[in-house]
Amino acid sequence: MLTKLKRLLIGRPLKSNESHSQKLNKFKALAVLSSDALSSVAYGPEQILIVLMAAGSGALWFSLPISLGVLILLVALVLSYQQIIYAYPQGGGAYMVAKENLGTNFGLTAGGALLVDYILTVAVSISAGTDAITSAFPALHDHSVSVAVCIVVLITILNLRGLTDSATLLSYPVYFFVLIMLIIIGGGIYAALTGTITPIHQHAQMGTPAMGVSLFLLLRAFSSGCSALTGVEAISNAIPSFKNPAPKNAAKTLLMMGGILAILLAGIVFIAYWFGVHPVNDQTVLSQIAGHLFGRNIFYYMIQASTALILILAANTGYSAFPLLAFNLARDKYMPRPFKVRGDRLGYSNGILTLGALSIILIIIFKGRTENLIPLYAVGVFIPFSLSQTGMIVHWIRQKPKGWGGKLVINLIGALICYLILAIFFLTKFTNIWPVLVFVPIVIIIFHKIHEHYMHVAEQLRIDFSEPLPVIHSSDNVIVVPVAGITKVVEQSLTYAKSLSDNVMAVYVGDSPEAIEKMTREWNEWNPGVRLVTLHSLYRSIVSPLDKFISTVKYKADKSGATVTVVFPQFYTKKWWQSLLHNQSGVLIKASLIRHKDVVIATVPYHFKK
Amino acid sequence: MLTKLKRLLIGRPLKSNESHSQKLNKFKALAVLSSDALSSVAYGPEQILIVLMAAGSGALWFSLPISLGVLILLVALVLSYQQIIYAYPQGGGAYMVAKENLGTNFGLTAGGALLVDYILTVAVSISAGTDAITSAFPALHDHSVSVAVCIVVLITILNLRGLTDSATLLSYPVYFFVLIMLIIIGGGIYAALTGTITPIHQHAQMGTPAMGVSLFLLLRAFSSGCSALTGVEAISNAIPSFKNPAPKNAAKTLLMMGGILAILLAGIVFIAYWFGVHPVNDQTVLSQIAGHLFGRNIFYYMIQASTALILILAANTGYSAFPLLAFNLARDKYMPRPFKVRGDRLGYSNGILTLGALSIILIIIFKGRTENLIPLYAVGVFIPFSLSQTGMIVHWIRQKPKGWGGKLVINLIGALICYLILAIFFLTKFTNIWPVLVFVPIVIIIFHKIHEHYMHVAEQLRIDFSEPLPVIHSSDNVIVVPVAGITKVVEQSLTYAKSLSDNVMAVYVGDSPEAIEKMTREWNEWNPGVRLVTLHSLYRSIVSPLDKFISTVKYKADKSGATVTVVFPQFYTKKWWQSLLHNQSGVLIKASLIRHKDVVIATVPYHFKK
Repeated sequence: MLTKLKRLLIGRPLKSNESHSQKLNKFKALAVLSSDALSSVAYGPEQILIVLMAAGSGALWFSLPISLGVLILLVALVLSYQQIIYAYPQGGGAYMVAKENLGTNFGLTAGGALLVDYILTVAVSISAGTDAITSAFPALHDHSVSVAVCIVVLITILNLRGLTDSATLLSYPVYFFVLIMLIIIGGGIYAALTGTITPIHQHAQMGTPAMGVSLFLLLRAFSSGCSALTGVEAISNAIPSFKNPAPKNAAKTLLMMGGILAILLAGIVFIAYWFGVHPVNDQTVLSQIAGHLFGRNIFYYMIQASTALILILAANTGYSAFPLLAFNLARDKYMPRPFKVRGDRLGYSNGILTLGALSIILIIIFKGRTENLIPLYAVGVFIPFSLSQTGMIVHWIRQKPKGWGGKLVINLIGALICYLILAIFFLTKFTNIWPVLVFVPIVIIIFHKIHEHYMHVAEQLRIDFSEPLPVIHSSDNVIVVPVAGITKVVEQSLTYAKSLSDNVMAVYVGDSPEAIEKMTREWNEWNPGVRLVTLHSLYRSIVSPLDKFISTVKYKADKSGATVTVVFPQFYTKKWWQSLLHNQSGVLIKASLIRHKDVVIATVPYHFKK
Repeated sequence: MLTKLKRLLIGRPLKSNESHSQKLNKFKALAVLSSDALSSVAYGPEQILIVLMAAGSGALWFSLPISLGVLILLVALVLSYQQIIYAYPQGGGAYMVAKENLGTNFGLTAGGALLVDYILTVAVSISAGTDAITSAFPALHDHSVSVAVCIVVLITILNLRGLTDSATLLSYPVYFFVLIMLIIIGGGIYAALTGTITPIHQHAQMGTPAMGVSLFLLLRAFSSGCSALTGVEAISNAIPSFKNPAPKNAAKTLLMMGGILAILLAGIVFIAYWFGVHPVNDQTVLSQIAGHLFGRNIFYYMIQASTALILILAANTGYSAFPLLAFNLARDKYMPRPFKVRGDRLGYSNGILTLGALSIILIIIFKGRTENLIPLYAVGVFIPFSLSQTGMIVHWIRQKPKGWGGKLVINLIGALICYLILAIFFLTKFTNIWPVLVFVPIVIIIFHKIHEHYMHVAEQLRIDFSEPLPVIHSSDNVIVVPVAGITKVVEQSLTYAKSLSDNVMAVYVGDSPEAIEKMTREWNEWNPGVRLVTLHSLYRSIVSPLDKFISTVKYKADKSGATVTVVFPQFYTKKWWQSLLHNQSGVLIKASLIRHKDVVIATVPYHFKK
């Protein structure tokens, strides 16, 4: 049943050698690797406006200078990551760069932050995608959590099946989104220049002083705007997927992506300002712009669909990144081994399932509200950003390649900006982001605990090839067969036990002297050639007298280095409901014995024929 | 943890010989055994009024002649049950009487109906008790289901502890209830005679014709009134608890109980009529009478408390009867064996838990509404009533003791009345009671299925003492040790396997030719003196290649009558969370092998030391 459902959902198992991958040209790589970054346009500008709105609509013009700050930051990040691309052509994730240059603990910090961050990528992107959908269909607004959860479940299933990494297929929605954004920006600028469309609200002139605008508020708005930069690092992690010369192609692609992102961001912020869009609860800024420019016609719905789609693709990047990072951490023995196992469809199923489950939990806790998730997301991104840059500084100082001075300066500036942003985050949004200070250290402690355990295990399991195998003589082994009566099952168990050793004991636990006497009499009559030990249970429990008896046997056996084996029959009925008719106390007794007594449990199946 | 919680809730385990019981004198027996019957006064009269109210308040006077009918029925039942008491002094439950005289199927019908009925006893009594509580505290009215469920949980826990069957303790609330009812009746009659209290509503004169009163309605009201007779059979089931001469004392007690019940019923019905009480949704008839007579003072709350208490005691009788009947049915192999097991506190825990769970389900399904549960309850009672009486008729005809003619006539009349009542039930309340026609046959079919299975099992397990034990030679046994690498655990498993047989094979499943080659090389280097078989898994699954291999081994072994033992190591980590870090695939593999392959599974524990 379960197996069938699994087959239906995720398809037939694939052979190990059916795995294959393709090399990407710049055009396709841009599409595949930039959905996370470009989709940020759908929520980044809005986050700035939400913060500014706290000081009234007169403060909204501040979005323009703030976006300029974000664009400068973007330039710094692109330059820094180009350095990383050349220095780590095998793919320099923050975990790798930080671990190699700054040591294990910084690596784990980056790794832990990234894991949390990928979960947030999924939660934020899907929440924002759901916003795009509910903006278009307001009737769904009250069900946004359910919609978001359904989408996550769907993506999880698709990833368990193994998405065909068809770059061609994935590139359509990305370029379509870019095209549509360019049309909106073009149409908006045209409307602004010609004045053919009246703004939604009158916008305040740039430079108008606004009450309630403090430096704190502006920094807060700036840090919100930094959420538009999430996903910039994706290309530097995926250099091996590029066609040769991979680092060069990757660096160019990063530059292209930065350029597109900058244009889209600047354009959307400008138009939102020009049309005097106010951030509202039940419709995204992008939806307001689109609806106002073109009316709620088919083109409007295409815009919303395209926005939702690129956000879902962005979430999907989390599904490639999280399981891979979990695999790397598991390989280094910092995460549980199951994350190393490939599933039926060759994906790292456990990583995919974990990511899906955790992001659903986040969506439910934060009620699917994008603006509540974004501060965490952004700070989570800037921790590995900072650590990568710092790692690169150490890298240049250590390696000192040709022209390292210039490279050092670039990464130094990048690092300083990142630390500045982090400082601004903690200064302006502490109430939103303190969980990071709790969870990341906890995750790191867990990494270490896991590592420690695996090291201990490896040490305990290691054997010396030169030592010969110890020998136990068959006659030393003690076999104990608990019996409840005289039946075929007992006969089978005794036969089996006698074939293993000459030292077999049957044990009967009776709850009255009469029961014990009766059993002894029948046993002698039957005479199976095995000694019967009887125990009297005052409390009707079989476990505790048996437990005590086996302790005694074990104690004696240990002296001669022999093993104790306890033989249990296990009934298998023909129909499942029949198994309910048999006391399953044997299962509990077995579990208790093997856990506490260090004896071998031999389970002899008895299959009922009707 | 769980064990501690259990100890806290139900107390320390008791020794088998701590079981004891006391013999009851008539006075105490009356109290202990009549709570079920007497508590019916709390809901019986109300049920009549609810039905009559459908024809308007002018029809309420019909409650008087209808109650007369119920009283006549009560006389017939008391007389019939007195016969049963003398004929079955060992305690003649309907199951016993029907099984012995009418055959197994009628016995099972009575048994099945009774089991359902005991569940309904709990559900109805607790619902009615909750009504008494919510009548006094209207704020609880909307939470009546939760209140009822809490009470059931509490009674279940008390019964698992083992209620001290202190008859003295139990007799107080019963006699207190009788006393209070007598005061109400006395006060009511005094008020009626002197006219000191104006009625709630003006009552219609007896004999006033009322629109909408049909024979159907009257029969319906009568059958509702019969719910007041539930519990009359309790004394006849408990004769062995009486002091000698037990049957005579029991018969006298039954007569006393009948008398008290008759007085209370007649009294309450009369006063309800005189005061013109209308049945309403949020207050019981009894509460209306008490409140009207005495005002909402401390005495009123005492009345409600006493009513709730006797109803809870009535529910408690279900907790003695259900597990005992389940034990009897399990002993006759019609119910699962676990119902025969005494728990830590000597009660039949499984029966108690089952009863608690099922009555909670009923209360939730019927939303704790007494009037919805009562039709099912009453019909469930009259099925065993009818079968007992019919059984007695057969008994007299077969045995023909001195004066059997008169006895026959009494039971004949009793039986006829019971069948008549059943006919009225099905005629007037079919929409309420059809589930009985579904559930009782299903229960009987289940009884038979269970019986059949136990018979089959007994047959398959029976052995012939004269046949000698078959012998398998140690050298024939094949031991298979699946290995995943070369570790201490593998060493330990191989050492164990070699001590059992000379025929040991290690099996390695690799997912690439390289892995297999590496393993073979290391194995040869280690040279443990055991042959290594390697299998290549295309799908990364270990189960299916292992499964196939073991089938082959098993096939060969079967030819020579030898057994196949598969040795699995099982890791036990020092801390519970560490066990999450080890693939538990072994558990699944073991389950699959033992279920389908008929091989012995030997589990060798390996306890990590840190």
